[in-house]
Amino acid sequence: MSMTDTLRLTQTVQKGGCAAKVSATELRQILGQVKFPPQKSDILVDGSLMDDAAIIKINSELALVQTIDFFTPIVDSPYLFGQIASANALSDVYAMGGTPQTTMAVLAFPLTVFSQKVIADVLQGACDKIAEAGATLVGGHSIDDDTLKFGLSVTGYVHPDRVWSNAKAQVGDHLILTKAIGTGTATAALKRSEVTESEIKAELDSMAQLNKVIHLFNSDELSAVHAATDITGFGLSGHLVQMARACDKKFVLSFSKIPKFENTFKFLEAGFLTKAHRTNADYVRSEIEVGQLSNVQQQLLFDPQTSGGLLLAVHPSQSASMVEKLKLTFPFTSIIGEVKTASDKRLEVSL
Amino acid sequence: MSMTDTLRLTQTVQKGGCAAKVSATELRQILGQVKFPPQKSDILVDGSLMDDAAIIKINSELALVQTIDFFTPIVDSPYLFGQIASANALSDVYAMGGTPQTTMAVLAFPLTVFSQKVIADVLQGACDKIAEAGATLVGGHSIDDDTLKFGLSVTGYVHPDRVWSNAKAQVGDHLILTKAIGTGTATAALKRSEVTESEIKAELDSMAQLNKVIHLFNSDELSAVHAATDITGFGLSGHLVQMARACDKKFVLSFSKIPKFENTFKFLEAGFLTKAHRTNADYVRSEIEVGQLSNVQQQLLFDPQTSGGLLLAVHPSQSASMVEKLKLTFPFTSIIGEVKTASDKRLEVSL
Repeated sequence: MSMTDTLRLTQTVQKGGCAAKVSATELRQILGQVKFPPQKSDILVDGSLMDDAAIIKINSELALVQTIDFFTPIVDSPYLFGQIASANALSDVYAMGGTPQTTMAVLAFPLTVFSQKVIADVLQGACDKIAEAGATLVGGHSIDDDTLKFGLSVTGYVHPDRVWSNAKAQVGDHLILTKAIGTGTATAALKRSEVTESEIKAELDSMAQLNKVIHLFNSDELSAVHAATDITGFGLSGHLVQMARACDKKFVLSFSKIPKFENTFKFLEAGFLTKAHRTNADYVRSEIEVGQLSNVQQQLLFDPQTSGGLLLAVHPSQSASMVEKLKLTFPFTSIIGEVKTASDKRLEVSL
Repeated sequence: MSMTDTLRLTQTVQKGGCAAKVSATELRQILGQVKFPPQKSDILVDGSLMDDAAIIKINSELALVQTIDFFTPIVDSPYLFGQIASANALSDVYAMGGTPQTTMAVLAFPLTVFSQKVIADVLQGACDKIAEAGATLVGGHSIDDDTLKFGLSVTGYVHPDRVWSNAKAQVGDHLILTKAIGTGTATAALKRSEVTESEIKAELDSMAQLNKVIHLFNSDELSAVHAATDITGFGLSGHLVQMARACDKKFVLSFSKIPKFENTFKFLEAGFLTKAHRTNADYVRSEIEVGQLSNVQQQLLFDPQTSGGLLLAVHPSQSASMVEKLKLTFPFTSIIGEVKTASDKRLEVSL
């Protein structure tokens, strides 16, 4: 057995997964200094409302959905890392109501540290998820780098009139979340060698699961989806505040309804946190009202997700049937709150 | 003046630009172990022939051209690095006969090393080149990383019947190269602090120049373009061998016709080489015949280009008028050789 066969990927990097994301605050400060190219009329959605992906209209029946995502290992198994990184990148297309079509690989790795087999396994995990999504791999770019990074640039198709923006939630909509929260603290525990991959299997399976839901719904249900996003690095609170801002609404959550993994509170109480827990808290501090929540409970809101679930704002007439269908493939699915008219806070969480 | 104002980008990384590319040989060995998703009928060109970008057919009049490229700094000025990285990524769309439409940024940088201004300058260089290309920036992904990396995922449009593949060069075609060779050795000299940016201005200007040529030609000239590629990390020899393989032809070059910068031989003679000079030589060794060329002359063939020129295989009836037009914006443009029937070697270079 060579050195690289026993190498744990998470021990080769300082920060893993969406926790390695540049904070939203810092990114805004940088982007505020840049003069962007003039936007064109065929761009229906760009980055200005912090949407998950851009929408580019091709004709009256077809638009492109484009997104890119990549990160350092959050798990030790190369195949699993490839699966999760790909599910995470593909998710932004699903979050816009699109179907992934083509992907290109973003790959950086230290040639001298990893065997070719490790890299091939990462790519195989990716290819298997891309195939499951019904998409193809059409290219990519690889560089010799100090730490492993992997992800995908993804292009999907969507009907231009059926885009799930994050700006159109309506007062009274139910907020459906399809996956449990808690992958951030679980992967922090793994990185610190406090748990093994088998002890956090539920979290790993969840991260590897594609957010492929659109085929589950009938046309009434699809019309009931007013807005959608996926929950990733900015945590449940960060992505909900972004959506509430984009819609100019207030979101009200019932904390007890937020699905979490069996381990989640144990890990949060043990203090398995990342830098992103803090930056995610900073990001929403002035716009969130957490009332009676304990510090540990608040950390659940700030927990950075990698390949987290979809958050759908849905007309209340359809939410029950949609949850029932979703539960067959996404057992943690829950209505966690609803949309209210805007007030001084964007997000209110009660026990 | 803060630390970061005096930071030279090239001194923050070990390997810069296309020289940091994973070698073609290694990449092939890794990809050979991976089972890829099933290809779909709408994919007209994928990575199997080492083309510059993928082509995805949307309808009888429109296809997408998709590519991704990113790397570590090869120059010290952040704005210039953003320009060069973007011109390099956009080039793959031009090399397929396409026009760039949308871009997404690939950004990795150490939050603690660089000021926000440095990153904003990189992005501004990118945005200015994207605007010059008539494209837009629709998104991106940034991570906290040990070294700066920047690049773009690019989608362009092309008519499906007017794609410049690299597989269709015909016997008798003239091989036109639009930019001088020598950026690899020049940036190696810069990295070793043997020269300043002002001493290699010709090389830097060349790397920042967009490979936008299609609008220069009339329809007869456009029809005369049988195959095209851009010359990047694998060097002139590597990209020519790839194209000759794809076409199943032999390419014959006249060494004296290959355009180079004023400094190029001086730098090569001084031994300003990169790891890629060696891997590029290894890559083509069995398929190239260099006859009387000295070792230094051979290094010119292996010099890894960043944002190098286009190589067009063109029917001889149109090559003279095309060179004349190209020279107005690409003064180094030259007919460097021609296409012959296949024999035991893919590339022959005579003095």
